[in-house]
Amino acid sequence: MAVYTEVSDAELEAFLAEYDIGEADSFKGIAEGVENSNYLLTTTKGPYFVTLYEKRVDPADLPFFLGLMDHLAARGINCPQPIHGRDGKALRTLAGRPAAITTFLHGLWPRRILLSHCGPVGEALAALHLAGRDFAMTRPNALSVAGWRPLFDASRRHIDAAEAGELQAEIDFFEKSWPRELPAGVIHADLFNDNVLFLHEKLSGLIDFYFACNDAFAYDVAICLNAWCFEPDKSFNATKGRALLQGYERVRPLGAEERKFLPLLARGAALRFLLTRLYDWVHTPKDALVKRKDPQEYLAKLRFHRGIASITDYGL
Amino acid sequence: MAVYTEVSDAELEAFLAEYDIGEADSFKGIAEGVENSNYLLTTTKGPYFVTLYEKRVDPADLPFFLGLMDHLAARGINCPQPIHGRDGKALRTLAGRPAAITTFLHGLWPRRILLSHCGPVGEALAALHLAGRDFAMTRPNALSVAGWRPLFDASRRHIDAAEAGELQAEIDFFEKSWPRELPAGVIHADLFNDNVLFLHEKLSGLIDFYFACNDAFAYDVAICLNAWCFEPDKSFNATKGRALLQGYERVRPLGAEERKFLPLLARGAALRFLLTRLYDWVHTPKDALVKRKDPQEYLAKLRFHRGIASITDYGL
Repeated sequence: MAVYTEVSDAELEAFLAEYDIGEADSFKGIAEGVENSNYLLTTTKGPYFVTLYEKRVDPADLPFFLGLMDHLAARGINCPQPIHGRDGKALRTLAGRPAAITTFLHGLWPRRILLSHCGPVGEALAALHLAGRDFAMTRPNALSVAGWRPLFDASRRHIDAAEAGELQAEIDFFEKSWPRELPAGVIHADLFNDNVLFLHEKLSGLIDFYFACNDAFAYDVAICLNAWCFEPDKSFNATKGRALLQGYERVRPLGAEERKFLPLLARGAALRFLLTRLYDWVHTPKDALVKRKDPQEYLAKLRFHRGIASITDYGL
Repeated sequence: MAVYTEVSDAELEAFLAEYDIGEADSFKGIAEGVENSNYLLTTTKGPYFVTLYEKRVDPADLPFFLGLMDHLAARGINCPQPIHGRDGKALRTLAGRPAAITTFLHGLWPRRILLSHCGPVGEALAALHLAGRDFAMTRPNALSVAGWRPLFDASRRHIDAAEAGELQAEIDFFEKSWPRELPAGVIHADLFNDNVLFLHEKLSGLIDFYFACNDAFAYDVAICLNAWCFEPDKSFNATKGRALLQGYERVRPLGAEERKFLPLLARGAALRFLLTRLYDWVHTPKDALVKRKDPQEYLAKLRFHRGIASITDYGL
């Protein structure tokens, strides 16, 4: 939770003057999202979201993210849709930061994941994959295998030798064994429960596309298995796994290679979140603005996936 | 900025079931207010504010605060109005904290104070004083003179000897000279620019009544002189002072004693904010969630008021 950049009256007024969305009648910083400053703006025409992109987002990536949301929204995906100014531009500057306005999505993200959420999440993920297939821009996944060793090297002196050895062996393994030929396209890459909105039990929107990139579709499924199908005690819930995978396959069936590699991809996805959490853990002051997330949770998940023989163990 | 308490789906649903305001369709933590956790709730019936009262608010004071907002709203003051549940109660428990829902006020608080804001603020403050006169409950001002020495004693070892001597002399002076017989009633006691909303150049609401208490009306005016009439370079802007005082007197003229004591009250108000800021400064870790406010700003204001001979020096 964070608002890093304060916006002055004059800056906001000048910014909004570029759009045709009415006058501001409320502007409140939102305590969600650790990467950017988010404001809920209401105008005479309704509610909007204003995002100021902070230093963890590379400005060079913004045309990809905003273009992707435009593309997906045009294809019926319920995601924030960038509002274009009178000059046609969706990206401009506010209070010295790159900034954009998007539509406001109704719904609440589930604080507690229920079985009933998992099927719709699988369906929505597959729909996103299909809708993104003809998106022209590309963005490599900076947090795929090639990015893991540098993250590990920057954190390893803070963890004990046995765990460091285990992670090193994992990275060695993945650098050799990561599949490169799976069906790929635009993936969300961060579809955790705080990025999926539900309204009256129905999935009402997907948000936060700021990790989206090009990678294997099945890797996105693997991320969701990690994000949605473990219980708070770190045990895997195969009923949730089945619901998620069946939901996905109702929209886009997985191929034989994707099914074969799913356990390996899920293990890799666990390692990816373990490593970024570990990095943030050791590089964030204890009482900083950003809440640190425990990397140990993902070590347990990684070990679980390492013991999985086939996709049937995920409940399918 | 802070949300201290997370609310689970089940807790929110059970809480809202006590009210007749429709179903939640969005629920977002707001990054404003350092004392409590605030959420913007939208339902099928419109926007609302949900506040969870955190540890700096004494639960015993909540009936006063909520009752006051009810009372003021019923008398035409634009302030958040507590929503009463089906059982008639406005105060209940959410996620283990005392919590209430209020109406949502439209408007933006001015990040930069303009001359045009000061007259309306004076008028609104006087209207609040008049509207509160027949409010039956009372709450003493815990941050008046009697509270200053304990705050100072808890912080003095962190400041240099000359400043400590100056503050000690101020407290000695106020303990002897503070006027006790001025017209009194319910005051806001914290009407800073982030607690006043404007919409299209007009004052649209007063918020944050969690310092409200019974004290001299003129002391509230003195707080506003400190909060609204100094420039960022700490110089007093007498044009703003005049606008604020004239605005106040359009609604409630100050009596002779109130005018006589205003410089002393303004000096006392500067000391009050200096001491609470100083206390927070020395007791808050540098990189904590709460942004620390520089106490030095109020030392400059205190010294300014000490040099003031009469209310005419404030522009009136």
